Amino acid sequence: MTSAVLQLRERLAGLEDLRVASGLLHWDQQTMMPPTGGPQHAEALGTLEQLSHERFIDAETGRLLHSAAAEVDGAAPESDDACLVRLVRRRWEKATRVPTELAAEMARAGSAGQEAWVAARRDSDFAAFAPYLEHNLELARRYVDCFDDFECPYDALLDDYQPEMKTTDVAALFAALKAELVPLIAKLSQYTMDDSSLHGHFPVESQRKLAQEVVRLMGFDGRGWRMDDTVHPFATSFGSSDVRITTRWDETYLGTGLFGAMHECGHGLYEAGIAPALQRTPLGHGQSLGVHESQSRLWENMVGRGRDFSEVLAPLIATIFGGELANLDPLTLFRAVNRIRPSLIRVEADEATYSLHIILRFELEQELIEGRLAVRDLPEAWNARIEEYLGLTVPDDRRGVLQDVHWSAGLIGYFSTYALGNMIAGQLWWKVRADLPDLSQQISAGRLDGLREWLVENVHRYGSKFTTAELLERAVGGPIETGPFVSYLKGKLSDVYEIPLS
Amino acid sequence: MTSAVLQLRERLAGLEDLRVASGLLHWDQQTMMPPTGGPQHAEALGTLEQLSHERFIDAETGRLLHSAAAEVDGAAPESDDACLVRLVRRRWEKATRVPTELAAEMARAGSAGQEAWVAARRDSDFAAFAPYLEHNLELARRYVDCFDDFECPYDALLDDYQPEMKTTDVAALFAALKAELVPLIAKLSQYTMDDSSLHGHFPVESQRKLAQEVVRLMGFDGRGWRMDDTVHPFATSFGSSDVRITTRWDETYLGTGLFGAMHECGHGLYEAGIAPALQRTPLGHGQSLGVHESQSRLWENMVGRGRDFSEVLAPLIATIFGGELANLDPLTLFRAVNRIRPSLIRVEADEATYSLHIILRFELEQELIEGRLAVRDLPEAWNARIEEYLGLTVPDDRRGVLQDVHWSAGLIGYFSTYALGNMIAGQLWWKVRADLPDLSQQISAGRLDGLREWLVENVHRYGSKFTTAELLERAVGGPIETGPFVSYLKGKLSDVYEIPLS
Repeated sequence: MTSAVLQLRERLAGLEDLRVASGLLHWDQQTMMPPTGGPQHAEALGTLEQLSHERFIDAETGRLLHSAAAEVDGAAPESDDACLVRLVRRRWEKATRVPTELAAEMARAGSAGQEAWVAARRDSDFAAFAPYLEHNLELARRYVDCFDDFECPYDALLDDYQPEMKTTDVAALFAALKAELVPLIAKLSQYTMDDSSLHGHFPVESQRKLAQEVVRLMGFDGRGWRMDDTVHPFATSFGSSDVRITTRWDETYLGTGLFGAMHECGHGLYEAGIAPALQRTPLGHGQSLGVHESQSRLWENMVGRGRDFSEVLAPLIATIFGGELANLDPLTLFRAVNRIRPSLIRVEADEATYSLHIILRFELEQELIEGRLAVRDLPEAWNARIEEYLGLTVPDDRRGVLQDVHWSAGLIGYFSTYALGNMIAGQLWWKVRADLPDLSQQISAGRLDGLREWLVENVHRYGSKFTTAELLERAVGGPIETGPFVSYLKGKLSDVYEIPLS
Repeated sequence: MTSAVLQLRERLAGLEDLRVASGLLHWDQQTMMPPTGGPQHAEALGTLEQLSHERFIDAETGRLLHSAAAEVDGAAPESDDACLVRLVRRRWEKATRVPTELAAEMARAGSAGQEAWVAARRDSDFAAFAPYLEHNLELARRYVDCFDDFECPYDALLDDYQPEMKTTDVAALFAALKAELVPLIAKLSQYTMDDSSLHGHFPVESQRKLAQEVVRLMGFDGRGWRMDDTVHPFATSFGSSDVRITTRWDETYLGTGLFGAMHECGHGLYEAGIAPALQRTPLGHGQSLGVHESQSRLWENMVGRGRDFSEVLAPLIATIFGGELANLDPLTLFRAVNRIRPSLIRVEADEATYSLHIILRFELEQELIEGRLAVRDLPEAWNARIEEYLGLTVPDDRRGVLQDVHWSAGLIGYFSTYALGNMIAGQLWWKVRADLPDLSQQISAGRLDGLREWLVENVHRYGSKFTTAELLERAVGGPIETGPFVSYLKGKLSDVYEIPLS
């Protein structure tokens, strides 16, 4: 007789396969699909979601879960089986509340919305996009209505991206973060910083070469990875043996492609580092989006924009681009990439202002979901808040409310995980530097394997076995907090601007 | 109350979506997937096949089919609904005989076999490939055993690719064809023909430009199509709004990439030309592989290697490659691309010897399936038959038994449709020239839309509504026959070689 755990694993493996199929459709839609292919992709995604949802919530899964729970009773709580049953039971209890039709419609609408967004963003035409956002919000509200055990509507959405985290917890962390960042930004605005080395003309093919060199140092492996162009960069994986990152290029600004590639490669390394035993199970993915983002931002910012790695980057840039950059020195580069200046585009924001972009979205999302803000008033609200938080005027919706893909794809509740990722990255960064005393020397010599292995050992290999709190308890000895990120940031910016910051 | 036909259509649309997901996994595996991604793709394909098969054969489909058949009773036999019910009932009756586990295992084994084949072909290592072929054959035999209403084992396989066609019918057509081709090839072997213009050094990027120009003339539309590189060229589509063709390039021979692209574009045009009303239904695909191949080979050979189109091709080649080809004249090109000479590689074979490559495979497949030939003896049998039919010695398995992807992917019974396609293309070619008296002038001026529209009108738009026999009855007034192809071929080669052929 096959154990219930094995039967459950078999059933879940099939669902993982459907997830691979959906993931490939998503990846294809954003990288390869011909322009007119959207509607059929949306239908296919809807059908896959319908089938997955049906199979996941049906009584047989419940029966297997029940029996499997009995089988793992008494097993070590950190065993794969015990973790699997715990994770799946939580998801199953949430999913069984959601009608299959709604789940499928959310998948279809997300795919269709993304297609509409690409065109609307290109044309800076919010009116063309508004009906898709209305529809996604209506579906999100219907989704929220499926639950009665969350304190506020937004909790139900946030929980999908950052399980077990409450809106009030995020709000408290964000308030503490904002209290630190606003005066820091105000203080630095009194200084100037030359970042002219990052602006000019940088042919895409040379940028691609630079990015390829850098991600190769990080651990990008041509046997199991690929890198493509897209409109809104992302990383995805179909198991740890098929990791795909995407990036976009700005021929006038060097930072977009390079740091975008490092960011997505950070996500990819997380997926690639998950233990083989967890593959084709629900444990075989990054734990939460917050932890995922801690990986991407650690590589992008702590490493990529760090002083040590500028010793590697500067000569690479000098060799690849030559010309005015032929003598680029590490310190000039380090300062240029850390210039603090309020800007319009989130993904290109510096480390100090970045979190304000997130807080703004976190607030607007709650207002939209709770019906306190109408979609037609969103651009105005967006622009007003950009003015308030960053002191900038938004010239058009392309550089305003239309800049991000998330809402078009129905990903509402997702944004806050980016700022949580900053905080977690800060915590991990202090710890890895304590554990590896010569990390600074390793990085400045281009040897990134020590860092990568530390991350595999302390974060990646566990996949989704633990909650974020448990994972952080193991890795850094405590829960998410803002302090380590803020003190890391002040330390770096003090170095960059050569002024005391405390 | 929703009619049974509508409910059936809804159910089938979901299955079409799963077919899209599988199709994308296949396309990805052959174009984009990183080398180590194979096993997860194979699992996903297996699971999708399992789900599709389960949903298709279940009792609910049977009930809907039964009710739908009653609803369409009395409807015009050529109505979409009547054709849908007829096609689906036939497929359902066949599919219900096949256990879901077998269907899923065939999908998994096909995907895994293909991965193994790519490596085995590269290394010319038949022994490494043999276990995969053994497994595919064993699965094919188990598949055959599911049926008791076919005259011979091979019928059950052939019927999947060329529905309602019998092995004995194919054998009779092939015998007639062989009787014509063998003396024709023998006669032409006494002559020489200069094809040096096709040999030399042709950079891939220039070849790609040439192919892009040519497929654009044919109807390749950048909004809904894409073209990629692969090991074994193929075309696929996800509805008529997302058509994907692939090709490969030989830097020393111009024909591979150019005619490969025209061939696959011919397949793509068929899928793109199917009536919108048939999309997302089982009718929304090419009718059979034989008819599909008639489209690819008509474009590749009747058009691409025709005298009229050489007026277009020669100046294009001259402009793109320059050098020794700067003065390439149409007649020289026309003769070069129609040189008849036995060769080792099927997809590069000329029009006279091509069908012998197929007949050889058709014979070997029957022997393998019936157990008269063991896998370990296959290379020897292959090489002996190449010697017998084409007078050539096979230097290695890469250029012998390992050259084609089909058997690795479990596609056993598929090959004969290529030669059937030649015959059907011959029949259509006579008819379209009779219907469009100035077709020759149109083609030599690079205007291919008249031909394309004729094919849409007479073949493409019907999708899978009719049987091959019905479709041909409508288009050319009779069943598949060898005569038109043979007389077309003799006419052309008589022109090429400037000798009488009858």
